[in-house]
Amino acid sequence: MTIAPATTTAAVTAAAAISRLSLNQRTTNAWTLPEAVDGCLRAGIPAIGVWREPLHAFGVAKARALLDDAGLRVSSLCRGGFLTAIDQSERRKALDDNRAAIDEAAALGTDVLVLVVGGLPEGSRDLPGARSRAADAVAELAPYAGERGVRLALEPMHPIFTADRGVPATLGQALDLAEQFPPEQVAVVVDTFHVWWDPQVEQQIARAAGRIAGFQVCDWITPLPADTLLSRGMMGDGHIDFARLRRAVEEAGYTGDIEVEIFNAEVWAADPDQVLRQMKDRYLAHVWRSLR
Amino acid sequence: MTIAPATTTAAVTAAAAISRLSLNQRTTNAWTLPEAVDGCLRAGIPAIGVWREPLHAFGVAKARALLDDAGLRVSSLCRGGFLTAIDQSERRKALDDNRAAIDEAAALGTDVLVLVVGGLPEGSRDLPGARSRAADAVAELAPYAGERGVRLALEPMHPIFTADRGVPATLGQALDLAEQFPPEQVAVVVDTFHVWWDPQVEQQIARAAGRIAGFQVCDWITPLPADTLLSRGMMGDGHIDFARLRRAVEEAGYTGDIEVEIFNAEVWAADPDQVLRQMKDRYLAHVWRSLR
Repeated sequence: MTIAPATTTAAVTAAAAISRLSLNQRTTNAWTLPEAVDGCLRAGIPAIGVWREPLHAFGVAKARALLDDAGLRVSSLCRGGFLTAIDQSERRKALDDNRAAIDEAAALGTDVLVLVVGGLPEGSRDLPGARSRAADAVAELAPYAGERGVRLALEPMHPIFTADRGVPATLGQALDLAEQFPPEQVAVVVDTFHVWWDPQVEQQIARAAGRIAGFQVCDWITPLPADTLLSRGMMGDGHIDFARLRRAVEEAGYTGDIEVEIFNAEVWAADPDQVLRQMKDRYLAHVWRSLR
Repeated sequence: MTIAPATTTAAVTAAAAISRLSLNQRTTNAWTLPEAVDGCLRAGIPAIGVWREPLHAFGVAKARALLDDAGLRVSSLCRGGFLTAIDQSERRKALDDNRAAIDEAAALGTDVLVLVVGGLPEGSRDLPGARSRAADAVAELAPYAGERGVRLALEPMHPIFTADRGVPATLGQALDLAEQFPPEQVAVVVDTFHVWWDPQVEQQIARAAGRIAGFQVCDWITPLPADTLLSRGMMGDGHIDFARLRRAVEEAGYTGDIEVEIFNAEVWAADPDQVLRQMKDRYLAHVWRSLR
């Protein structure tokens, strides 16, 4: 019996880990889509999470050709959602925009459209009402998505964003909604920043088996930066035990891409190539800390 | 049959509502304890939540005499807790300090000691471990509290504070711990700021029947102020539906004091007498909006 030396095992494992790494485009916010594609190629990162604004700036058909030529997987399209409007014309506009986003995801060849569901409408304090309207809108979009081979990936959001970004506050609540639909229509995204604090996170990740459409990582840092939208940290700079959450999504059967999504003014001001190098190092050191 | 005119009914109800209003001392952070007592008397506020630092500055025995003379109820003593240390000498120091806080609550004649359980120790990412240590410390303190007629009132904290202030992130999690002890030893505090976002808030408040030792109110405002510790808003300035949560705690049988606890730089910079006037108005307009 031959036992491979530890260095070889580690090298193989690092390569396997990197084969699942994806750059969410917001992490290198200064880059256009072609710049981000080139950056991934230089850094040996095999997948990218695309955002709609830079996608529109470049063009969907051109983007598909560029990504295919580069051989990059598209791990997700970010994002649809904002489905909580009370006003009927706003609601129709949001539904139309989400159908366009579903079409774009299909055109890009990804089956994951991340949904940030939306917060309380201006002046409203009716949280159960907003949650109910979001559920109605998802019901309207789900068959349209499924017919195009796209899963609506509900993103439960940290309660810091309940008022203004996303009313589903826990993975359990997102699953309560998702489970009303076939898993090929509605799924969830597990983002460490949003779920790490949840006392039920492990049970709910286990419950999500078959419905995990994405796993996103970034850290919870303190003190929280003044702009809460830019409060995400590079893995290792904060308080999250990434390996624990990675193991939980693996035990739930998820073997897909792991996107690094960091909204942070300091990260955005840094040289993007340097950000990608640090991101790879930190990903191996923290997300894959406890290799099994 | 005589039906009282609506104005009379409203006036009686406002008086009944004010009879349950308590000033948490932090809301008027610039005032010493005797200044806060005088302020409550001027404003017709019948109860006060006392903080330990100003209590120590004035003296516990003197404070008891002052409060008795003024005829003010003490709705709570804030606060014990910070029970998550790994280091054994730190842990012993925290337990000693909490026993002192229990003695102070008993000396003041309140049966409520609010516990802010504590966050992750410096450099630790082991959230389940911190939760487990907090539970062990509560087990050590609970009989001591019960023997002195004081309830340890666990305060589940908004997940914005999981890393650095309080590891119990939901009312459900606080109840999982509290229910291991008799309700006269360990109870919970329901603070609107901490729980309003929780999809399970109504079920968990119902579950808390018999264990609600306090109900605190302040608002969730956006954009969140830069210092998250000072991010609480005056009722009506934010997104919380207070009447819904008040009804839930009432349906769970809670008829005790309702403390207004606001950490906010603008509120602290304002004239405290004016803050008390606004607090009374907003309390009636928002916490008691839907009179039943």
